[in-house]
Amino acid sequence: MGTTLQGQKDKASAFSQLHLDPTILVLPNAWDVASAKIYERKGFAAVGTTSAGIAASLGYPDGEYVPKHLLMETTKRITDHLAIPVTADIVNGYGSTYAEVLDTVRTIIECGVVGINIEDGLPNHTLEKIESQSEKIRAIRQLADTLDIPLVINARIDTYWSQIGEPSIRQEQTIQRANTYLRAGADSIFIPSVSDPATIQTFVSMINGPINILAGPHSPCISELEQWGVSRVSFGSGPIRRIFTHIEAIADEIASQGTYHTLTDPMPYSELNHLSE
Amino acid sequence: MGTTLQGQKDKASAFSQLHLDPTILVLPNAWDVASAKIYERKGFAAVGTTSAGIAASLGYPDGEYVPKHLLMETTKRITDHLAIPVTADIVNGYGSTYAEVLDTVRTIIECGVVGINIEDGLPNHTLEKIESQSEKIRAIRQLADTLDIPLVINARIDTYWSQIGEPSIRQEQTIQRANTYLRAGADSIFIPSVSDPATIQTFVSMINGPINILAGPHSPCISELEQWGVSRVSFGSGPIRRIFTHIEAIADEIASQGTYHTLTDPMPYSELNHLSE
Repeated sequence: MGTTLQGQKDKASAFSQLHLDPTILVLPNAWDVASAKIYERKGFAAVGTTSAGIAASLGYPDGEYVPKHLLMETTKRITDHLAIPVTADIVNGYGSTYAEVLDTVRTIIECGVVGINIEDGLPNHTLEKIESQSEKIRAIRQLADTLDIPLVINARIDTYWSQIGEPSIRQEQTIQRANTYLRAGADSIFIPSVSDPATIQTFVSMINGPINILAGPHSPCISELEQWGVSRVSFGSGPIRRIFTHIEAIADEIASQGTYHTLTDPMPYSELNHLSE
Repeated sequence: MGTTLQGQKDKASAFSQLHLDPTILVLPNAWDVASAKIYERKGFAAVGTTSAGIAASLGYPDGEYVPKHLLMETTKRITDHLAIPVTADIVNGYGSTYAEVLDTVRTIIECGVVGINIEDGLPNHTLEKIESQSEKIRAIRQLADTLDIPLVINARIDTYWSQIGEPSIRQEQTIQRANTYLRAGADSIFIPSVSDPATIQTFVSMINGPINILAGPHSPCISELEQWGVSRVSFGSGPIRRIFTHIEAIADEIASQGTYHTLTDPMPYSELNHLSE
């Protein structure tokens, strides 16, 4: 889309504002240009990437196994094709030092994104220490300020996702992490694996900033999340994993029945050819 | 998979033999590592790529709009992850001279494929002249012989796909092209957009080599194709276009209902993470 720096700043401001509006921000997750374009054509205000989806498509497990340059190339291809804001999942930030993480953030901004997801869950089912994760977020905010771009930092807390710590104090620890990350410069707090209405409502009332909930088949519906004050809902690898189920169904039918009912009603070839426009 | 040159030759021989067995070769079409791995896990003997699918995923229309290096990288990622043979769609061969086409073929062989689709349909709904397409096929066969690899050359004839020439003589022209391409060194003949049983049976009886039919929702089922003597059935962009329909359904439901029924029964996250193995 040939976005200028000013265009990217405006887009970041608009994306940031979407977290503050009373209407919930519905953010579907893309793994390639085609999925992102389909979401954009359906009228979504913004798109997020899914690290797990990008990884699977390229032949890697989720995490930071995808080489950094491939993550960047894939992200840039998506932003290059979209007019709406794109926020990128950068896992832990691809770095063992703050300098490396900042290099990742600088590079992903150069790819045209206006937001990032950065998580405190580490591969070995432990959490980054709250102090060092906060320091990381603070450094990213300073970098964004230096670049004069209102980057939306979505700080993901993996207490529930990785089932870390005593369940009795998990909620309290999550709230503590959330408010610490917000003070460090995060714009919103993403807590995947939480679908219990009471817990969600507690987070909304106790966390001093916008909340992002990961939705799936067993989640409260979007109107309920909105009613409770959730600011953003996303879907992670849910869409691509559902797509994989359909590929399996196609494969099963072709292999065992030799018929093609699962291929019925495809997007027309001519439309596929205009998807990149 | 770290295939040796000998391993690639053996794989090419095995793939070639699959065209000569009385059992029909069922070849689903992949656009990324994940789709290819799903097919392999379902027990298919081989996988083809879809140029339209790879293009859409990367943000291009079908044809030779995908930069050659990206086509190669995507193809190599797929072959690197599969133990079964992979055949690649190289459109017209990415070249305006025989030398350029041969460079494409050499490079795609280096990416680990053991077969190619090369088509005589040009972007402007015309056909390559039969003599020059035959010369191209002859040159590719000579290159493969020089490299000592029994590359399976699947020569695609676009008379029906592009609805070229008088319908009354289309069948005859197709048969003429098919037998000329076979004499030039093609291993099999791919005629997309043909689903009429009588026409398919005429092709099987009049063409002196294996026939590849493109199947979709309105095609004869695989057992019928096999009974008529069709050697190979593939699906082109059908699977990815059906997948796009499901992404649209997910997007529609999330946007208009705020619910997630279309996300029900996803591939488990843990399974997604093992897909690359």
